[in-house]
Amino acid sequence: MAPEAPHTLFASDNAAGVHPAVLEALVAANQGHALAYGADAWTARATAQFRDLLGVDAEVVFTWGGTGANVVGLQCLLAPWQAVICPASAHIAVDECGAPERFTGCKLIDVPTEDGKLRPEQVERELHGVGDEHHVQPRVVSITQSTEMGTLYSPAEIAALADVAHANSLLLHVDGARIGNAVAALDEDLRRVIVDPGVDVLTFGGTKNGLMYGEAVVFVDPALGVNAHFVRKQAAQLPSKMRFVAAQFEALLSDDLWLRNARHANAMAALLAERIAPIDGVELLHPPQVNAVFARVPAAALAPLADWSFFWVWDQEQSVVRWMCSFDTTEADVERFAAGVAEIVAAHR
Amino acid sequence: MAPEAPHTLFASDNAAGVHPAVLEALVAANQGHALAYGADAWTARATAQFRDLLGVDAEVVFTWGGTGANVVGLQCLLAPWQAVICPASAHIAVDECGAPERFTGCKLIDVPTEDGKLRPEQVERELHGVGDEHHVQPRVVSITQSTEMGTLYSPAEIAALADVAHANSLLLHVDGARIGNAVAALDEDLRRVIVDPGVDVLTFGGTKNGLMYGEAVVFVDPALGVNAHFVRKQAAQLPSKMRFVAAQFEALLSDDLWLRNARHANAMAALLAERIAPIDGVELLHPPQVNAVFARVPAAALAPLADWSFFWVWDQEQSVVRWMCSFDTTEADVERFAAGVAEIVAAHR
Amino acid sequence: MAPEAPHTLFASDNAAGVHPAVLEALVAANQGHALAYGADAWTARATAQFRDLLGVDAEVVFTWGGTGANVVGLQCLLAPWQAVICPASAHIAVDECGAPERFTGCKLIDVPTEDGKLRPEQVERELHGVGDEHHVQPRVVSITQSTEMGTLYSPAEIAALADVAHANSLLLHVDGARIGNAVAALDEDLRRVIVDPGVDVLTFGGTKNGLMYGEAVVFVDPALGVNAHFVRKQAAQLPSKMRFVAAQFEALLSDDLWLRNARHANAMAALLAERIAPIDGVELLHPPQVNAVFARVPAAALAPLADWSFFWVWDQEQSVVRWMCSFDTTEADVERFAAGVAEIVAAHR
Amino acid sequence: MAPEAPHTLFASDNAAGVHPAVLEALVAANQGHALAYGADAWTARATAQFRDLLGVDAEVVFTWGGTGANVVGLQCLLAPWQAVICPASAHIAVDECGAPERFTGCKLIDVPTEDGKLRPEQVERELHGVGDEHHVQPRVVSITQSTEMGTLYSPAEIAALADVAHANSLLLHVDGARIGNAVAALDEDLRRVIVDPGVDVLTFGGTKNGLMYGEAVVFVDPALGVNAHFVRKQAAQLPSKMRFVAAQFEALLSDDLWLRNARHANAMAALLAERIAPIDGVELLHPPQVNAVFARVPAAALAPLADWSFFWVWDQEQSVVRWMCSFDTTEADVERFAAGVAEIVAAHR
Repeated sequence: MAPEAPHTLFASDNAAGVHPAVLEALVAANQGHALAYGADAWTARATAQFRDLLGVDAEVVFTWGGTGANVVGLQCLLAPWQAVICPASAHIAVDECGAPERFTGCKLIDVPTEDGKLRPEQVERELHGVGDEHHVQPRVVSITQSTEMGTLYSPAEIAALADVAHANSLLLHVDGARIGNAVAALDEDLRRVIVDPGVDVLTFGGTKNGLMYGEAVVFVDPALGVNAHFVRKQAAQLPSKMRFVAAQFEALLSDDLWLRNARHANAMAALLAERIAPIDGVELLHPPQVNAVFARVPAAALAPLADWSFFWVWDQEQSVVRWMCSFDTTEADVERFAAGVAEIVAAHR
Repeated sequence: MAPEAPHTLFASDNAAGVHPAVLEALVAANQGHALAYGADAWTARATAQFRDLLGVDAEVVFTWGGTGANVVGLQCLLAPWQAVICPASAHIAVDECGAPERFTGCKLIDVPTEDGKLRPEQVERELHGVGDEHHVQPRVVSITQSTEMGTLYSPAEIAALADVAHANSLLLHVDGARIGNAVAALDEDLRRVIVDPGVDVLTFGGTKNGLMYGEAVVFVDPALGVNAHFVRKQAAQLPSKMRFVAAQFEALLSDDLWLRNARHANAMAALLAERIAPIDGVELLHPPQVNAVFARVPAAALAPLADWSFFWVWDQEQSVVRWMCSFDTTEADVERFAAGVAEIVAAHR
Repeated sequence: MAPEAPHTLFASDNAAGVHPAVLEALVAANQGHALAYGADAWTARATAQFRDLLGVDAEVVFTWGGTGANVVGLQCLLAPWQAVICPASAHIAVDECGAPERFTGCKLIDVPTEDGKLRPEQVERELHGVGDEHHVQPRVVSITQSTEMGTLYSPAEIAALADVAHANSLLLHVDGARIGNAVAALDEDLRRVIVDPGVDVLTFGGTKNGLMYGEAVVFVDPALGVNAHFVRKQAAQLPSKMRFVAAQFEALLSDDLWLRNARHANAMAALLAERIAPIDGVELLHPPQVNAVFARVPAAALAPLADWSFFWVWDQEQSVVRWMCSFDTTEADVERFAAGVAEIVAAHR
Repeated sequence: MAPEAPHTLFASDNAAGVHPAVLEALVAANQGHALAYGADAWTARATAQFRDLLGVDAEVVFTWGGTGANVVGLQCLLAPWQAVICPASAHIAVDECGAPERFTGCKLIDVPTEDGKLRPEQVERELHGVGDEHHVQPRVVSITQSTEMGTLYSPAEIAALADVAHANSLLLHVDGARIGNAVAALDEDLRRVIVDPGVDVLTFGGTKNGLMYGEAVVFVDPALGVNAHFVRKQAAQLPSKMRFVAAQFEALLSDDLWLRNARHANAMAALLAERIAPIDGVELLHPPQVNAVFARVPAAALAPLADWSFFWVWDQEQSVVRWMCSFDTTEADVERFAAGVAEIVAAHR
């Protein structure tokens, strides 16, 4: 008999729904008419919240999704003969179907890393051919915080990347699809993780942290975003009934909901790691830093496990899986999932 | 003393909020986890509804917004050295900040029209240079139904355009941002307005007809959409938590809500026209065919009117305004708006 | 019996070969080795000649062809959400297979004209939607001198266009594929036709005026061309053995060869017009201003004429032809061509 | 006292001029008028020569330069959401300022190699995510023959790559900027190196093998090039006075001039290697396979050597240089160059 499946999926944090407070904000925003495209009170308020959180008069534009946010943010920084230095595992390099290259015209210089994190010396190694018309000209360093491999940059590590970028006339972009999980894990505030270390542009993720949809592109120096409205519209990323994006962010940024959601997801991943680690045949690749658990399982158990409670295999060859927790993962879900994994792995070694 | 303003805006149908049944569907869809990107039951059901409505096994992909839907639909039909023949007043030509040119690489051949409607002979006139490598090659005819100028194509008119297109190896794209208003006004069903006349690709609008967000790209012949999933992702138009787009369409397509919403908006525009027509100093340009009223007002009244209840001036030089009704415009709103217009115009002739 | 055909074609000035002095320069440049891509003495000298001719320290980059020159010049001035205002008959709008839209991402706003010439008031009429994110933002006015319809702008007319452009933060681009014919016809020098009236970027044509290949993009203010080398390389317009492009320009700009060639072609067109005008059944559309003659001939004569000495029909419906003279058209060619036209037209009225 | 410098540069084979027979063909082609854009007898003849050489009715289009040829060839094979698998050292990846990404919209998947050569198993390793809309879809394998590192693929190695490509619905593109050197070194004919192993598209280089300018894009299966004329024009790669490109190719393909030129350049590189190898302090990296010699020299000698007879450093960190021979390098040049290297290295160890 199959073990009882958990009520939530561990496939990805975007399998979760909408946080109740966010849904409530959506319902509340559905009152009367409001001008479209951002000329509404919700957008003004959510923008102000972002500026408060960052402590600077950033330019903030909201977009539909994460790929769109990256495309808009990068496009504002780049001419088409320039290039982006990023980890080879970056979402922009691997998971956006070439949208950044297509839209910016630029080359992505994909740098292999051990752990999804780019190091300053790796950036420096790619700074050749500067001024040579035959070579694309590096202009942006792009990192993901937290990374696609569940790892974290410390503020000091970000500062070191910003320093090498700025010393070479490059800009630093942070893909913050899971910025909440990172800030929560670092036990910091957004300003100290983004503004103080010198990040130039941040895409602030909402969808993976409890929103129905919506991301924000934050230009710490508003001069960098001076054309962001045109770029966003041409990228087809300008939401029509904008109040419903803004209202969600208003809820997310109120009372630290974004950090509370993220902290909870991180805690559930820690619990899952704790429960998974002792299982015979399962190898935890490293202690989770945010809300993702990477583990090696017996190859024969891969299919039965995914059949039971769906997730994607991270690395088929290495028999490595990624399990993610979200804002609404419960302790009971984790316990049930760990118990099921133990039972299924035992049966398929 | 200023007249009492209506409770809804007549600026655009996207100033409206979300229809209660759609909001209810969103709340209902927020149950548990569901795989992202369309691998969910809501998407399957909404897709099936579209196929039922059309009577063909169309390929249907959902996108965030209307510009995105046009971009995805057109990109699937075009190579970059080809061209789109469209009215000069088309949304794709005027209101999308060049997104179609940017994303497809194609030239839009903008044809001036009297009433926003393209005629077969105008298409034929642009079919020169075929096979000549110096000229872009016309490949798509794109029309908007109902048009940006509030006019309508009859099914026969669409069939005539489809015929001239197909006879010349071109395809017919319909921007259906307000397809509901058109089908309601024609008192037809979707199949007879789209499939039977030979439309190849339709972008079916949801946002202007009561959705929070979400549009659908419908490839009547699924072979035309065989790469739509890649195109959509690269265009950054793939919603992550897709169930919330699909759930809205499920509600919209159920019990003819899309037609009921549209019919109501159209009726309110008819009422508004009736109330506006007799006002001294106001000239109704033509009887409204769908949910937009175009009128000439005294130049001196433009600013006071917009200050009182905001709308955009359609043609400053001609002193022409566009007033739009939406699914939630009430008769009381219309009466109040017409009364206010009369009062303000009287004071500013 | 068919009349004797002329030894040169009147189809286009690019049917001509290479001026002997240019060919000689090519042969002379084939001495020993020279570094590629412009790091050679010929390129330095030809660049200096351009600066002398213009009287300013312009940035000058050489390209392969005319479409490439336009693409490089425009790309340096434009962000993809901007637009180019140009006559609907412009080469960039009609004859470059969409290369400008494709490469810059921008929309071309094609303005219908009577005579191929844009007027300041037509530019002003297109300056709406400025600052509105839904609309492409006009940034460049592009004119052709002499135009595709064989007409000319006076320096004062160019200055008026430059003034309206600059007053609205736009730049003025001149497609000078036939700039030699224009300057010769105006009996001016390049500085007074380009620099003094305020042109920002000129593409200076060589191919149609006696070169084997090669065009120059001239940024009057070198700051506008600061990225031209990267743009040119990415546009695949960087000639490898550059000395052979530069050597040709060196010959063309020496001893006013470019003006002498152009003057001759213009004179031959004037002679042709004189000979053609009296022919029964042939209507000269207007006296030629440069090297093109536009005439209406009997429809029945179109095919026999082109069969006899090939040219393209300019407007099939109107039965209008364009006949062009080049630097090597002789008086005997003109007399023979006119005689043949008379004979064939007489036989096909 | 400095040693006598050679009369030719060893910097690159594009520092050479034009082969006398090619120049003669250019002079001979300058007779009378010919229609532009390829509607001339030279183009017909050169195209026929290519087809004879290949033994198939290939589609052949001529372009200005090598980057342009690659861009046109690749664009014909690719949709923008697809990808190209190529060695990280490929010219398209490193030396074209991002033109391929910019023009095709596609991602280049740059695969690190030891020797500039891609292996079938490396291709297979990149064939993941097929059918997954989040990932670019590999569609083309691109190799360079001979490679940028002076190495060669055997026909069997090319066949193995073609097999793995075709088995996975990919196409094989060969950048043949130095295809002559490769075919000469293999002592084969073009058919056995290109057609028989299954290459789909070849860019056949002329400029580095004695032409003034001009490359050819060869679609072995003409169906792949069905849109090549439009793609070429939109890429601004359509030469106007085409006869002068075609006349050069006619000369190059006559009497095996392309192979004789290449064979000579290869032989000079072999001689150079022989002379360089015994020099104390100079390490030949590997015996030259074509016309490039890669050697490690004392770091202190780099600048003095380049000051004496210019070349580019290949790898500053490793103190590796690339010296290239061309069709016109003489034995005396080689002897003088080797002697100078010996003397300068001896003085700077």
